[in-house]
Amino acid sequence: MKSFFTPASVAVVGATPNKIKGGFHIFNNLATYYKKGTVYPVNPNYDAIDGTKVYRSLSALPERPELVILFTPADTIPGLIEEAARLGVKRVQIQAAGFTEVGAPGIVRAEAVMKTVRENDMRVWGPNCTGSVSARDFFFSPFMPAPDLHKVLIPGPVSIIAQSGMMAGGFLLQVLDGGYFGIDKVAAIGNKMDIDEVDIIRYLAGESDTRIILMYLEGIARGREFLDVARSLSGKKSLVVLKGGRSAGGRTAALSHTGTMAGSDDVVSGALAQAGVVRVNDFIELINVGKALATLPYPRGGANIALITVTGGGGIVAADLLNDFGLKLANLTETTIGRLAPIFPAWMPPKNPVDIWPTMELRGINEALQSVIPIVLEDENVDAAVILAFASPISERLDIGPITSAIEKTKKPVVSWLFGYIPSFEPFTNLMRRAGIPVYLELSQAARVLAGLKQIAT
Amino acid sequence: MKSFFTPASVAVVGATPNKIKGGFHIFNNLATYYKKGTVYPVNPNYDAIDGTKVYRSLSALPERPELVILFTPADTIPGLIEEAARLGVKRVQIQAAGFTEVGAPGIVRAEAVMKTVRENDMRVWGPNCTGSVSARDFFFSPFMPAPDLHKVLIPGPVSIIAQSGMMAGGFLLQVLDGGYFGIDKVAAIGNKMDIDEVDIIRYLAGESDTRIILMYLEGIARGREFLDVARSLSGKKSLVVLKGGRSAGGRTAALSHTGTMAGSDDVVSGALAQAGVVRVNDFIELINVGKALATLPYPRGGANIALITVTGGGGIVAADLLNDFGLKLANLTETTIGRLAPIFPAWMPPKNPVDIWPTMELRGINEALQSVIPIVLEDENVDAAVILAFASPISERLDIGPITSAIEKTKKPVVSWLFGYIPSFEPFTNLMRRAGIPVYLELSQAARVLAGLKQIAT
Repeated sequence: MKSFFTPASVAVVGATPNKIKGGFHIFNNLATYYKKGTVYPVNPNYDAIDGTKVYRSLSALPERPELVILFTPADTIPGLIEEAARLGVKRVQIQAAGFTEVGAPGIVRAEAVMKTVRENDMRVWGPNCTGSVSARDFFFSPFMPAPDLHKVLIPGPVSIIAQSGMMAGGFLLQVLDGGYFGIDKVAAIGNKMDIDEVDIIRYLAGESDTRIILMYLEGIARGREFLDVARSLSGKKSLVVLKGGRSAGGRTAALSHTGTMAGSDDVVSGALAQAGVVRVNDFIELINVGKALATLPYPRGGANIALITVTGGGGIVAADLLNDFGLKLANLTETTIGRLAPIFPAWMPPKNPVDIWPTMELRGINEALQSVIPIVLEDENVDAAVILAFASPISERLDIGPITSAIEKTKKPVVSWLFGYIPSFEPFTNLMRRAGIPVYLELSQAARVLAGLKQIAT
Repeated sequence: MKSFFTPASVAVVGATPNKIKGGFHIFNNLATYYKKGTVYPVNPNYDAIDGTKVYRSLSALPERPELVILFTPADTIPGLIEEAARLGVKRVQIQAAGFTEVGAPGIVRAEAVMKTVRENDMRVWGPNCTGSVSARDFFFSPFMPAPDLHKVLIPGPVSIIAQSGMMAGGFLLQVLDGGYFGIDKVAAIGNKMDIDEVDIIRYLAGESDTRIILMYLEGIARGREFLDVARSLSGKKSLVVLKGGRSAGGRTAALSHTGTMAGSDDVVSGALAQAGVVRVNDFIELINVGKALATLPYPRGGANIALITVTGGGGIVAADLLNDFGLKLANLTETTIGRLAPIFPAWMPPKNPVDIWPTMELRGINEALQSVIPIVLEDENVDAAVILAFASPISERLDIGPITSAIEKTKKPVVSWLFGYIPSFEPFTNLMRRAGIPVYLELSQAARVLAGLKQIAT
């Protein structure tokens, strides 16, 4: 599997000097950024790309490439696979589309390819995909422009497996630009004619740089093996899945997208939960849960959440959303109540949700948050906390230091929901970021993320 | 009820020159912005606020005020209500807290107040609330600083009723700063000791400037009357409710927030649906649905959605999310398929989700979107559309004109989901905004909003 992420040599068939074509970008990205192997452009119609010699065919290459990437019209692919087989090539990545997802003629093509692959002990990745990425090696095979890759591709603990190329690419861009988390590997596996998510997960199981695996899948190939490998990773690596095709409409769409039979969702859902896989339903949830897993400490498996809020109404809605995700309001200990009481006005005895508005009015935002947050986090009944914050020019004056210390000391995850004065959103978010507290504009995301952390830690 | 929004005279008891106190802000906001009535500060401890004479008591005022606002410690309130009653004042707004929500002593106070109110044919608003706003009249009674109110308070079709003061205020700020929609009235009704949401809705029923009523409620007082008035507004005004206390934890929190008995949620849920009220579960949903109702045309009651997408995976997940909200993928007519076919590559016959990626590669973003969107919107089987867009410097070059025309011609709602390159989010969002297309970063919000429009139009 390593050949798809750090090959000693890679041939790009369909490389072209035409800069609006995907074939240019695959070659150009590899030639520009990848330094651990030789990159060969292959195309019978051109002599050179930006001064690099182009080879007429795979057979014309000066060596047998460890990996061949195919980006040519679908009807040329079976012949190219045969040529690769004859040369003894063992690993091929087909980024071209036009296979099972287009019906009968594509199915014939797919069968021809797989016959050659099986007879020659080859492995094939794709088709209908955007390839593979290894961030640490700057190996980037997707057929998209990737300017400044060396600046934006930050190595980190998250690997991504996606059955949708655009999702893998767009998602990756958003994650990198947004500073969500660093990346280890990205695998856009498309129709997964041969190599599938089970192969990739098994490979990532041995990659110590990957702590978290985020997946977008349309069907789960080899269900039993998927669950076995998922279960074997439990406690070692975190798996998060967005599975398309939960509905009849989604399943029909999946069939024409990647030729996937998505299967009944009830079975999938139960199995994933048993195997300790976190299930999400939207792309932004995949990003948010991924970031939380990459950056936050884990609660001790408990579901008891403290809400620290400037709004009573927000606290109530948050309690409802926590309940939707199987979490609940922590019962604060008598000790905590006793420690909080002197800070609170007499007419509002402290309880959870911890409404700090009166304390803020009395003592200001710094004294309120700096005194309340450590006391709440130190409560043995509290597994995690949500801060419901009102953004205003006043909130920008918060000194985050003591809160950071309390989080570091107690090692409990704290997330935040923000509402109010929009111009204060960015400065307040940056402030929270310094304390390692992610900020959401949807209260439901705070509950969603804590539920994900809880599930992984259980 | 008009006395709470455009009184000919208003007295603020608890007005103070201390600029960090709420009592200063209530007086200052009214004195600065409200021009349709006289504003009197009342406080025995001061002679003047910023040069305006302060009256020692309600009895010392030169006239009987149409409205009295009380912002003094809870234990002074029963006496002040008696004084107001003696003077013949009929409308009082109690912003002060310390009533039912604090238990026994507060309940005694509430009973004393209500006794006086009933015996003197008065109506009381609050307590434990942030008052009332009439945007067109620049009447703004909340106890919060409101700099530049005359610039930010944009009149519009949406009125807000909220049982949580901070929510009403923070929510209002966010809505105004974010340019979501203009406001008619805001009613933060707190404990609703006397005046409740039914009174406010009945009043707003006669206010032609209000087309949409957004509510945050913790309990529904007078359930039958609420449903009667909601039903009577069906087809005339749109009602959207976020109801706190769906869960046991939420209900307990509601009791200590506004002293509300939230009641079983199953009953509430069924009744709201019957009365044509849109139910949402998060604050951002309340804002998004409110904006959609304020700005988008309504579908014909149908649930058939076209997805126009650059990502197959996104289309599948969108289909699942539509299904979650009771919507479905539209079956495109043969005519539409025939009109789309020449634009699509032969290997990808058009269907819904309409995957425009290959067309974009072939013809560029402008030709792709400008040809596909009008054809899809003109389909009689399509009630509304979601554009799933990939943000990139290329997407910024989109000429939105022809899309705007198609939307105006077909009068069908179009919303958009955006992912990809974050620096392109803002320019692309502004582009979409010019065509009247709201942009969400959560795909689920697109489905949520269309479901709200559908429910109202049914």
